[in-house]
Parts: sequence; C-alpha cells; structure tokens
Amino acid sequence: MVTTVLDGKVVSEAMLQSLAQHIRTIHLQTERDPGLAVVLVGDNPASRVYVEAKKKACAKVGINSFDYRLAPEEGEGALIDLISHLNADPDIHGILVQLPLPNGFDQQKIIELINPSKDVDGFHPMNVGRVWQGLPGFKSCTPYGVFELLRYYDVPVEGKHVVIIGRSNIVGKPLASILVQRAAGANATVTICHSKSENLLKLTQSADILVAAIGVPGFVTADMVRPGAVVVDVGINRVEDSAAKSGYRVVGDVDFKSVSAVCGPITPVPGGVGPMTIAMLMKNTVESFERHIAEVNK
Amino acid sequence: MVTTVLDGKVVSEAMLQSLAQHIRTIHLQTERDPGLAVVLVGDNPASRVYVEAKKKACAKVGINSFDYRLAPEEGEGALIDLISHLNADPDIHGILVQLPLPNGFDQQKIIELINPSKDVDGFHPMNVGRVWQGLPGFKSCTPYGVFELLRYYDVPVEGKHVVIIGRSNIVGKPLASILVQRAAGANATVTICHSKSENLLKLTQSADILVAAIGVPGFVTADMVRPGAVVVDVGINRVEDSAAKSGYRVVGDVDFKSVSAVCGPITPVPGGVGPMTIAMLMKNTVESFERHIAEVNK
Repeated sequence: MVTTVLDGKVVSEAMLQSLAQHIRTIHLQTERDPGLAVVLVGDNPASRVYVEAKKKACAKVGINSFDYRLAPEEGEGALIDLISHLNADPDIHGILVQLPLPNGFDQQKIIELINPSKDVDGFHPMNVGRVWQGLPGFKSCTPYGVFELLRYYDVPVEGKHVVIIGRSNIVGKPLASILVQRAAGANATVTICHSKSENLLKLTQSADILVAAIGVPGFVTADMVRPGAVVVDVGINRVEDSAAKSGYRVVGDVDFKSVSAVCGPITPVPGGVGPMTIAMLMKNTVESFERHIAEVNK
Repeated sequence: MVTTVLDGKVVSEAMLQSLAQHIRTIHLQTERDPGLAVVLVGDNPASRVYVEAKKKACAKVGINSFDYRLAPEEGEGALIDLISHLNADPDIHGILVQLPLPNGFDQQKIIELINPSKDVDGFHPMNVGRVWQGLPGFKSCTPYGVFELLRYYDVPVEGKHVVIIGRSNIVGKPLASILVQRAAGANATVTICHSKSENLLKLTQSADILVAAIGVPGFVTADMVRPGAVVVDVGINRVEDSAAKSGYRVVGDVDFKSVSAVCGPITPVPGGVGPMTIAMLMKNTVESFERHIAEVNK
C-alpha cells in the first residue's frame, strides 16, 4: 500500500504564492502593504530561529516585517509601552510577541494587551472565545494550518470522528474549536484526550482522523491507529542523533515508520504541519490588513 | 436495579442556602450586598417566566435585583445606553440581558458591550475564551450547573469519557470547556457530537457520561446508552399534553422511562439541570461581588 503523505511544504508554498499575488493586487489598488510587528524579548535560540523564519516568510509574500528586540532587563513596562504603540500604529496589522517570554514577564497579561484586531497569533481570549463560538476571529496558526492542510488534500472531515491527543491552548483545544464548527471543511465529531484519559487505546482506534499533539517523540504507534485512518502529527521534538551534524534530529509524536504502514494519509515531521503554521500567520496578517483597508475606505 | 436520580432541586437548594449564608457573612463585615441587573426587552412570555425565577432566587439568597424593562420600540440605542450605565454602576455586580432579544437587536454586539467582569451569564467571548484556556472567567450557568451537580453526587469524571450530544454555545461547547480542563472535578475525555456526526450510536454507547443537549424530546433511547452509564439531560422541551392543566408538559431530550431502566445515575426533567442553572447565576453574581469588594479594599 502506498501511503499518501500530506506535504505541508508543498501546500504552504502554494498558499504563500497565492498570498503574494493577493498582496500585489491590493498594492496596485491602494499602494499599501500589510505590516507585521515581530517582538522578541531576550535571545532564546529557538525563539530566534522562529522569528527569522517568520521574517523570511514575510519577505517572500510582501508583508513588511518590523523587528523589535528588547532585553529582559528593560522589563515588562517597556514591552507594555511597545505594544500600546504598535496597537495604535496604522501600518502594523499584526503583532506577534514571540513566546515564551523570559521569567518575570506575565505572558497572559501581555497577550491580553494586544488589540484583538491585531492578534494574528489568535492567542487573545477574545479571539479564542469568538472562534469557539463560531464567530469571526483569528484562528491560532497551528490548528488553522492543520485545517487547511486537510482541506487542500480533500480529506473528508464532515461527520468524521477526529480524535485529538493533547489539550494544549495552542493546538489541542483550538483545533477542536475549528473542526467542530458548523462550517465547510469542519463539522467533525471531535474528541479531546489527554494524560488523564482512560482507555486511550480504544479512543485512538476509534478515530477516522487521529491528531497527535502531546510533545512525546513516537508516542503514537501502529496498534493505536485504525487501518486506513488519517494521521496528523503536530509534534516537533528534538532527539539526540550523533549521526546528524547538529547532534540532533527533529521527530514527531508519531512513530512514522510503523504507523505509515497501516494508516491512510499521514503528515510527516518535518515538512507536515510545521510549514503550515507560518503560512497561516501570513494569512492572518493579510486578513487583518484587508479588514483595515476596508475600514479606512468606509 | 434502583436508579440514582441526580436531584437538581435538592442540590440547587443547598447551594442557594450556602450562598445566602455567605452573603450574610460578607454583609456583616462590609454592610454591602451583591446586585444583579436583570434586563428584559419586550415581553416574550417564556422570558418573563425566566426573569421572574431569577428575581425570586435573588430574593432568596440576598442579592439585590434591579429590574430594567425596555420596549422594543426604544431600540438598540436605549439598550446600549443602559448597559454602559450598568457597567459603570458600583452597586451592580452582574448584568443579565435576557435572551433572545427581539428582532432588530444585534444580540452578539449587545453581549460584547457588557463589561466581561459583570458578564455573569458567561456569554461574552472574553469569558468564553478564558474558560476554554483554563483561565479564571465566568462559566456559563447551565454547563457550570451540570459540573456542580456531578460533583455534588461524587460522580467520577476524571479520566472518564463524556460524550455530549449538541454543540450549542450555551451548553455543548462550554460544557466541553469545563470538563476537559486540568482541574478537580474535571479532567474528562470529552467528545462533542452533533447532527452531522456519523455513527452516533457507537459514540453514545462509548460514553461513561452521556449528556443530551439537542432540544429534541426523547431523542436518547435505551439502546444508545451503555448499561450503568451516567446520563445528564439538559433538554427542556414543551410537548402537548391534553391531560395537563396548561395543555403541555415539559420533557427532556432523554426518554427517561426506557433509559433509566439501563443507565446508572440520571438527571430528571424537570428538576435536574434546570434548577442548577439559576443557582449558578447566583453563584457567579456573588463571585463577581466578592471580586469587587476585594478590589475596593486593595
């Protein structure tokens, strides 16, 4: 049996190209471009890598990215001032504060200070609540990416049983939010399982679409997957690998080798959900920009 | 087999008594009382019944209820002015706008104008989002009532599979929000099914706790329930009954007679979840009042 690999690189690339085209069209009409503020506090190496990737994607599609770096010593007050400045800036349509923030910063408080209309990460409770209620609002980028990836490959979702392992605020819960709605590409039955769930095996085996978002390398094994089920691997785990130049390699939450032998379509790691996340950040920023343009022209 | 009936009248009565005691204690210390504004637009007969029941509960526990009646002809502007006045009033700790609003009123806009710190119905996206994220916020009264009812009877929830039929914003989704959290009395595996769900029978049969919240009289029949499973009936449906003085009687979404013969503990209708809803509204109002007192004393 040949496994269909749900290729996030290909799909995100297609989405970025279509966004670039869309931005050019708007530019021709308005001479304006979308702007994304990327705020990094401190110099966590992983955060630096993410920030660079986001800026690169901006450059590719034609979003102006504005870089803001703060030293942790400048304190929460400086970050608060910056956010209030960015909230008011009409050339900034999205504000991304790279998480995690250093110790001593109240992360939730900072998120809630971002104007919900510029919260392109979709982490503000106002957006979280609106998406959960089926109202317009920014969807978190990773679950939104899963949604778009399934849609691109015409994976049937409506009426199907999606079982999500993991109840995090950045993947498990917001993915349930998106997939359970009465909406095209959604309308799924959704189950959220987690570390306290009894009979996990029975639950995962009942999935038409199984989503792993727990952060444990190779957690999902072949016996947990119904033959032919769709498998989405949201895990990004570094494991030591002396053969690799960096000394590590990145693996998902799914034991790809054993699982891909029994399942239907599956996302690889790397190259599955990961690239989709950044594409959705671009999409949210453009959406915010368009709303801004529409308001200005009212 | 003797079925345990989860008696919402008894539990809500106990909760109201405990709230009354608590309010008296605070009054002795502060000479202040909680206040709930009850806003009714128009004269929908069912809404009038609900409003009266809420005012009665307020009187019982010692919450000052303030009545506001608007005629639909006064328009949305009058309601907006009233809400902004109530948001600013330090003697009002909860604002309840009885839904549904008449035609021509933008219900979502009105809800979002209520200060989230006074949104004791838990319908504002800010509270919906915060509860979903596991942060402090007002929980919607009906799902909160289900949670407290299960807790009162020591029904095991942690690790159990809760299957909710119905994805409404007032019951299905917020109940999932509460029960899936990493919290005492919660920590459940949660499944949301709905009208588009395939294999509904298999899903409901896999439930340790089955919740019916669809608004279809007698929808859940014995064959859908695993023997011994807990059954929670959130339905409140009027069906014609020529034998009744009113010409109708109230029934739930569960066929009580057949289901109670096979299931474990079950909530009746009426007298199950219904009375809990109002008790939780009182609890939320007192919580808001206490937070207000704490802030004043800061």
